[in-house]
Amino acid sequence: MTDVVIAGIGQTEVGEHWDIGLRELAFAAIQDAVKDSGGLKPQSLFVGNMLAPNLSNQAHLGVLLADYAALLGIEAVTIEAAGASGGAALRQGYLAVASGMVDVALVVGVEKFTDKVGAGVDAALATTGDSDFEAIQGMTPSAQAALLMKRYMHEYQVPADGYAGFALTAHANGVANKAAMFRKPIKPETYTKAEMVSDPLNIFDMAPNADGAAALVLTRRDLLPSNFHHSLVKISGSAASSDTLALHDRKDMLFFDTAQISAGKAIKQARLTLNDIDFFEYHDMFSIYAALQLEAVGFAVKGQGWKLAADGEIGLKGRIPSATMGGMKARGFPGGAAGVYQAVDAVTQLRGQAEANQIPDAKIALIQSLGGPASTAVSHILQRL
Amino acid sequence: MTDVVIAGIGQTEVGEHWDIGLRELAFAAIQDAVKDSGGLKPQSLFVGNMLAPNLSNQAHLGVLLADYAALLGIEAVTIEAAGASGGAALRQGYLAVASGMVDVALVVGVEKFTDKVGAGVDAALATTGDSDFEAIQGMTPSAQAALLMKRYMHEYQVPADGYAGFALTAHANGVANKAAMFRKPIKPETYTKAEMVSDPLNIFDMAPNADGAAALVLTRRDLLPSNFHHSLVKISGSAASSDTLALHDRKDMLFFDTAQISAGKAIKQARLTLNDIDFFEYHDMFSIYAALQLEAVGFAVKGQGWKLAADGEIGLKGRIPSATMGGMKARGFPGGAAGVYQAVDAVTQLRGQAEANQIPDAKIALIQSLGGPASTAVSHILQRL
Repeated sequence: MTDVVIAGIGQTEVGEHWDIGLRELAFAAIQDAVKDSGGLKPQSLFVGNMLAPNLSNQAHLGVLLADYAALLGIEAVTIEAAGASGGAALRQGYLAVASGMVDVALVVGVEKFTDKVGAGVDAALATTGDSDFEAIQGMTPSAQAALLMKRYMHEYQVPADGYAGFALTAHANGVANKAAMFRKPIKPETYTKAEMVSDPLNIFDMAPNADGAAALVLTRRDLLPSNFHHSLVKISGSAASSDTLALHDRKDMLFFDTAQISAGKAIKQARLTLNDIDFFEYHDMFSIYAALQLEAVGFAVKGQGWKLAADGEIGLKGRIPSATMGGMKARGFPGGAAGVYQAVDAVTQLRGQAEANQIPDAKIALIQSLGGPASTAVSHILQRL
Repeated sequence: MTDVVIAGIGQTEVGEHWDIGLRELAFAAIQDAVKDSGGLKPQSLFVGNMLAPNLSNQAHLGVLLADYAALLGIEAVTIEAAGASGGAALRQGYLAVASGMVDVALVVGVEKFTDKVGAGVDAALATTGDSDFEAIQGMTPSAQAALLMKRYMHEYQVPADGYAGFALTAHANGVANKAAMFRKPIKPETYTKAEMVSDPLNIFDMAPNADGAAALVLTRRDLLPSNFHHSLVKISGSAASSDTLALHDRKDMLFFDTAQISAGKAIKQARLTLNDIDFFEYHDMFSIYAALQLEAVGFAVKGQGWKLAADGEIGLKGRIPSATMGGMKARGFPGGAAGVYQAVDAVTQLRGQAEANQIPDAKIALIQSLGGPASTAVSHILQRL
């Protein structure tokens, strides 16, 4: 079998789209991706979505979107793994094409947070944790991240502004990204003076929930249309792993096992080593997640992930550029679409289309999508051919 | 690559399990299936679930179940396509094993209706239709099925008791099925005197929502353990198709295009013809669905599906035995588990383990899982080797 390649990418601007519905958002991204692929005709649709049954009172998104995008007749299904839904949908699309049963797969991530407000959003988000043992006690994702931050600061003597580098890097990189929700750089004092959400987690330690959709067209290399004119990006590694929903069930809550396992498998499948990776799109829903992912994957030793950010090593010219188009912090966090946006960003870099944010001669990317505090991790290696 | 086979099956009794939680239900089925497979170790978990984010306030079921079943570390993801979630999860498991990337896949369907009652269930079920254009107007699945029944009766001069054969057959076959919710035969007058739900749909024209879980272990033929002792069943065809969510958008609402397309593809992949099929597990959530599936697949001409039931042709000794273990009508409808129960029933028949319900020398089964009024259809051919 020839390589599985990402032939088309599409995305909407991320933000509060009060006047655009879930199906319209998804359609915009699908249309862009299909056009970008040179007009490939998908046979299967894999929808990455996290919360539409609660946020939008809408399940059965596969056929809803196939219908609205004039693709009826094709296979259509929703893939859910909380915040990792986008990465998981990409993996299902990859498996389908790799199986030889599907020639062209369309992966679309979509989320519409503004269909609900306030407590409705909190209740929806709480369904991604353990409903019987955590959510019911009032545990929210941001409270959980705050606990992780606090413990990490205690264990490794991290200063009060120790996490600032993640937000500074993301917002610097988001300036030139037309799909990003926030396109202004921030200063160190913006972080230190920021409003507290759940001590020590301030508003710059978390990505904003937002609406958005991103799409990918996958196919086999030998099926590319003759008018395909981009540098070619293949998926050379794909893996996923699971850990407890509840932090209290883990031996070491400050190490993201799934991030290590899934990245390790994907890198091995691609026959690469960590040193081969040119940049890393992590899941910076919370700055602590980014720090722990850098450590789990192996870019930093335990307790030192935050220093990569503080020392500028995750910047575009650093040792391991991360959140290269602004990440979730500056782009916004569109739930089940977030992992698909990561792939769009990585392909943009690998094709050499990242303009002001371009990493010179970027050839190999690691992208990693998380559900909860790495209860799920899905990792992919994308590689320019 | 060698054949993809179903090595293990497991199921819980279907019913109102007020005292058993969603994770416990799933675990019971998983444990049975893994044991039945001779102890194969799954690498990937595909959860078919329809409504847990609403019914049980629980998303992220993949890791919840992997955790509870002591399978942490494995890939785990939820697959949703409304009532076809079980069939869709089976298909994703099949694609994963067929890709060569996964050696052993665990497919589990689970639903816990009794986590909500009354209007809570109706609201959850309404999310599987078009929220913006149908659900918001009060359209429920049973109201929709009643409209289909009425139109069908008008077009084809079907008598008032024309659909009775579906319930009579299902309840006759359910008697000997220990996993069935209802194990009593019914008489023709039970049907004609039954309470009306939404004229002309009476309480025997629909399957009861209920709790349950079923599981399958898939692997490649060459990876079977030496202690495997069942007749071997392979998946020789797999396909899915999509149609509009809303009936009003269809050219002909009395023909289930997706049932025809997906069954046709699956049969073609298996290099069979319709005549080769020994029995058919249809999606008898509503008797009208069963009638329209028999027609779409090709077992009856248009308008005559109901007569197969009325004439006893879907009975165990009929021309095309259907709902051979009681179907959804007698077993109960456990949402996203329903399509997985179909596979369990078919494997039971193909192995020759169906006891009183055994179809002599059954070798080839067609199973078909629907989401909404065939907005999604997923078809599989299971075949004894």
